[in-house]
Amino acid sequence: MLSDVLLVSAPGKVILHGEHAVVHGKVALAVALNLRTFLQLQPHSSGKVSLNLPNIGIKRAWDVARLQLLDMSFLEQGDPTVPILEKLEKLKEVADFPEDCTDHERLAVLAFLYLYLCICRKQRWTAEDLELINKWAFQGEKVIHGNPSGVDNAVSTWGGALRYQQGKISSLKRPPALKILLINTKVPRSTKALVLNVRNRLLKFPKIVAPLLTSINAISLECERVLEEMATAVPAPEHYLALEELIDMNQHHLNALGVGHTSLDQLCQVTMAHGLHSKLTGAGGGGCGITLLRPDLTGPEVEAVKQALTGCGFDCWETSIGAPGVSVHTAASLDAPVWQALDGLCAGQWASSS
Amino acid sequence: MLSDVLLVSAPGKVILHGEHAVVHGKVALAVALNLRTFLQLQPHSSGKVSLNLPNIGIKRAWDVARLQLLDMSFLEQGDPTVPILEKLEKLKEVADFPEDCTDHERLAVLAFLYLYLCICRKQRWTAEDLELINKWAFQGEKVIHGNPSGVDNAVSTWGGALRYQQGKISSLKRPPALKILLINTKVPRSTKALVLNVRNRLLKFPKIVAPLLTSINAISLECERVLEEMATAVPAPEHYLALEELIDMNQHHLNALGVGHTSLDQLCQVTMAHGLHSKLTGAGGGGCGITLLRPDLTGPEVEAVKQALTGCGFDCWETSIGAPGVSVHTAASLDAPVWQALDGLCAGQWASSS
Repeated sequence: MLSDVLLVSAPGKVILHGEHAVVHGKVALAVALNLRTFLQLQPHSSGKVSLNLPNIGIKRAWDVARLQLLDMSFLEQGDPTVPILEKLEKLKEVADFPEDCTDHERLAVLAFLYLYLCICRKQRWTAEDLELINKWAFQGEKVIHGNPSGVDNAVSTWGGALRYQQGKISSLKRPPALKILLINTKVPRSTKALVLNVRNRLLKFPKIVAPLLTSINAISLECERVLEEMATAVPAPEHYLALEELIDMNQHHLNALGVGHTSLDQLCQVTMAHGLHSKLTGAGGGGCGITLLRPDLTGPEVEAVKQALTGCGFDCWETSIGAPGVSVHTAASLDAPVWQALDGLCAGQWASSS
Repeated sequence: MLSDVLLVSAPGKVILHGEHAVVHGKVALAVALNLRTFLQLQPHSSGKVSLNLPNIGIKRAWDVARLQLLDMSFLEQGDPTVPILEKLEKLKEVADFPEDCTDHERLAVLAFLYLYLCICRKQRWTAEDLELINKWAFQGEKVIHGNPSGVDNAVSTWGGALRYQQGKISSLKRPPALKILLINTKVPRSTKALVLNVRNRLLKFPKIVAPLLTSINAISLECERVLEEMATAVPAPEHYLALEELIDMNQHHLNALGVGHTSLDQLCQVTMAHGLHSKLTGAGGGGCGITLLRPDLTGPEVEAVKQALTGCGFDCWETSIGAPGVSVHTAASLDAPVWQALDGLCAGQWASSS
């Protein structure tokens, strides 16, 4: 089945240190997460381009001939073309854009259609340049988020670990692959409201909060230093101890910024009861946390903490950070469970008509 | 009974903000606690000086004639006389010093005997100068602690709230009397070990911990500003909100310094479940915490949180801070319960033979 199929994947990401502080000009460390999104491109002869996003329950198809007749000249500006609001509105008008789904789903379809039409028109379908993939991924981010930082697409493109500060992104040299738990507290929160809370606290108590952001900045830099040291030397217990201390301090700092939540306190306490160290990742106020898994942990020890976390009602994935970026796969390069899962899902999935 | 008796009291104290940071040159705020130690001085004709410390189970008596025969000339240096180790060892030799009690009790007896003998020799028994009381109290502190900061004796002498930084102590102008809970987690800890931990963390992560201490310093200064504003204006809800935010931030900062404890986390969570804000006070790692009681709280609301705290196995006192300093009492100036408790305890208690 893989003979005429292109199968690619890209990693998710977590913020290791620097969330919120990054908004105020400080350093953040973003790391590729070995939980991957797979994309299968497959030609077929129906004359249609089909989009199948099983995880969010979307299955759509458009007639290619009809799309080619539409006036899409407005898309031909720049490279990659920046999705300004006007263009997106026009695209919704001219394409057969679905109206009967949630905002979340509509944004996913809009990002697909936009990238599909722009990339097809430019005959760039086969280009493998990571820079180009990153630029297009950034445009997809803009469709969905409006004003993304560029970190998410960069870390999913290049993988590993990235340092981000005031728009400047650089890769860490050979960061180690660290085992972690990614935990979703399932407590919903508004990133925008949390970012605003931090800004208000900075305005109310500038002399208290400014040095706190400086301290968080130093945590990100020290973490970067430890990760690079782990890459050049044999990782030692003291490296993991330092990573754990940095995680603890940053979690307390994020609490002091006012972006903690009782669910995150519970997450930290449950993992601490198993001798493991955790922090929130991203916006806080609920959302997700990460727990560092030291290499000395046994399988049953990891299982016990996972069970305790799911017992709290949290979702929990055992994975690693510092994962590879966007990748092309062959059947041989995939783990059997991943391959089986894809095979079950993919019959006629996201099939390009080109 | 009070006719030939001198009854005095002095307040306990808590650190409101700045514990640990003060060791590194930052500001600390110490406040007098309205939990008082009472001292009753009463002449009698037995020819003995008796010491009765019912709270720690000590009852001792010395023959005054015998004490006067001893060579105590080594005590006559300076004013007040600094209790150097050599003098204290000599005092243990020449006085009938009890050997059959704990270190804690022996130190209390030693401090009493030292102050009694020094002050009697200098005929200063009746002096009421607060400066002098404070200086003698400081010498008592030195007997027990070795190298005290001078804050504890100062706040118990003058009461109210004191600012302390690098050996300089100043009083806040008219600080408001704030209602608090003082909570003892009953988890024992070593102040010395905790202070050392903070120093080690500062040495290991200077760029992370130094700005954290700067942030704690700013919390103490902001708290001082809010307390002085409450003294000059009518205290408003936003004053209490700011005090609560400062308490929360400092508690997170103390956790980031590594001086938290699961018992203190529990204390904070239990009070937070009742909408109240708490922090550790003093060394941390267990020990005591304080909870701010806003003036809008009803009696039953306070009772509910006290019950929840005692349900955790903690001891809990409802009291206030910003209390008066060392005071002389008459029966009329004392609350009936205090008076009754003293009357029950005091028959022939701490009676001076002078």
